[in-house]
Amino acid sequence: MSLLLENRFRDLPPDKAIDTNLFLESVSHIPSFFDCLGSNVFSIIKSDINGNIQKIRGVYLKDPAKYVTLQDIVEAEREAHSAEWPKVGATLALMWLKRGLRFIQVLLQSLADGEMDENNPNHIRVNVTKAYEQALKKYHGWVVQKIFNVALHAAPYKSNFLKALSKGEEVKEEDCLANVRQFLGNYTATVDAIYDMYTNLNAELDYTV
Amino acid sequence: MSLLLENRFRDLPPDKAIDTNLFLESVSHIPSFFDCLGSNVFSIIKSDINGNIQKIRGVYLKDPAKYVTLQDIVEAEREAHSAEWPKVGATLALMWLKRGLRFIQVLLQSLADGEMDENNPNHIRVNVTKAYEQALKKYHGWVVQKIFNVALHAAPYKSNFLKALSKGEEVKEEDCLANVRQFLGNYTATVDAIYDMYTNLNAELDYTV
Ligand SMILES: CCCCCCCCCCCCC/C=C/[C@@H](O)[C@H](CO[C@@H]1O[C@H](CO)[C@H](O)[C@H](OS(=O)(=O)O)[C@H]1O)NC(=O)CCCCCCCCCCC
Ligand SMILES: CCCCCCCCCCCCC/C=C/[C@@H](O)[C@H](CO[C@@H]1O[C@H](CO)[C@H](O)[C@H](OS(=O)(=O)O)[C@H]1O)NC(=O)CCCCCCCCCCC
Repeated sequence: MSLLLENRFRDLPPDKAIDTNLFLESVSHIPSFFDCLGSNVFSIIKSDINGNIQKIRGVYLKDPAKYVTLQDIVEAEREAHSAEWPKVGATLALMWLKRGLRFIQVLLQSLADGEMDENNPNHIRVNVTKAYEQALKKYHGWVVQKIFNVALHAAPYKSNFLKALSKGEEVKEEDCLANVRQFLGNYTATVDAIYDMYTNLNAELDYTV
Repeated sequence: MSLLLENRFRDLPPDKAIDTNLFLESVSHIPSFFDCLGSNVFSIIKSDINGNIQKIRGVYLKDPAKYVTLQDIVEAEREAHSAEWPKVGATLALMWLKRGLRFIQVLLQSLADGEMDENNPNHIRVNVTKAYEQALKKYHGWVVQKIFNVALHAAPYKSNFLKALSKGEEVKEEDCLANVRQFLGNYTATVDAIYDMYTNLNAELDYTV
């Protein structure tokens, strides 16, 4: 479980503001999550998420003192690019990144909750499908949705997935899931806070790709 | 047809050596070819090819005087990274880039040759499938092959594709195809020369993704 444990997300402050620098540090370990899925088909998704993170970091590094929190960035871009905003810059990158983060969150939560296909207890397809439906499906046109259905067949067995999450160590399923639950605490709170921010700032879009 | 005409590839010298700088200039217009396919599903492929070009340019810019031709780069990398070569650096990027270039070449050639599905004369699926089989299929595992089959349904109609190639201008199909044939001359010679170089230097790999 080292992969996730080493990269715990931080406690949020009472006002739920997310420190940009700490967020970028924690989230930079997320793309390697997709390596746990085994097939290099998923390296495409890894690059997409990596691109989101680089886009946000690029904006942050231009003026770290100005962009202390993620909300500082989104608000500054609303000022600077009022015509295209929110389909622009780090605002767009974070809009998509949060969906990928939500996908991972729902997938891990569903596994931690013991949801499974009784006929195929070692498959994670029900969990992946639930995560996809909650986080991404409505933003995908029918071609990408069909591609998801094909890619689903490249999903690993649960045992292999949990082993990969544990960096290849043989950890008991229950121990691994206990660690997942611990990880999910601050992670879920952070993802929720980003979603709330997009709602509050009216920054969410629902176009499909 | 401006898209292609504006960015003709150069004549090759008698020894078929490809000037790195001129190649990078010509090829930098290729990713926008994928916009002609209409669906933003193909933006994934555009990024992959863009990444190849950036990788090669990155190496070139480190020492333009040393890397005058593409072969100079591949040979220098063989020296510098003998253990991993050819699965490394610009050698790997050009290995994949040439397959994308071949895909485009076979697709355009097939259209220029008038190959078509008599029952669906305005479809380009037979042409796209031929290009895929000749350029890419053997380097793709079954999941990516199935994804190709899904993506094929997002291929545009021939009339729309030719219009997009002509930058949205209403050009007669025959005029557009005449321009395609002109473009294909130096383009095909360049792609062939890269393939020959990979064969001669024993730099080709056939792993699948
Ligand atoms: C040769 C044969 C192949 C032929 C063609 C193949 C084409 C394949 C296409 C498949 C789609 C792959 C997934 C990527 C989809 C991406 O298109 C979307 C939107 O991507 C966003 O787009 C924005 C502009 O609209 C900006 O560019 C964002 O970039 S910006 O930073 O510049 O602002 C970018 O992230 N991201 C997404 O949907 C996010 C996906 C997140 C993770 C999903 C997990 C799923 C796991 C599934 C497990 C079973
Ligand atoms: C959320 C739901 C989605 C779930 C998951 C979706 C996953 C989608 C996966 C679809 C595959 C998309 C095509 C991209 C495939 C790429 O994987 C390959 C290899 O790509 C190479 O890999 C190397 C390492 O092995 C280096 O990284 C190269 O990078 S390096 O520069 O770093 O060295 C890189 O180009 N390129 C290719 O196969 C090239 C493709 C070229 C063009 C193809 C035209 C086809 C047009 C079809 C028209 C109908």
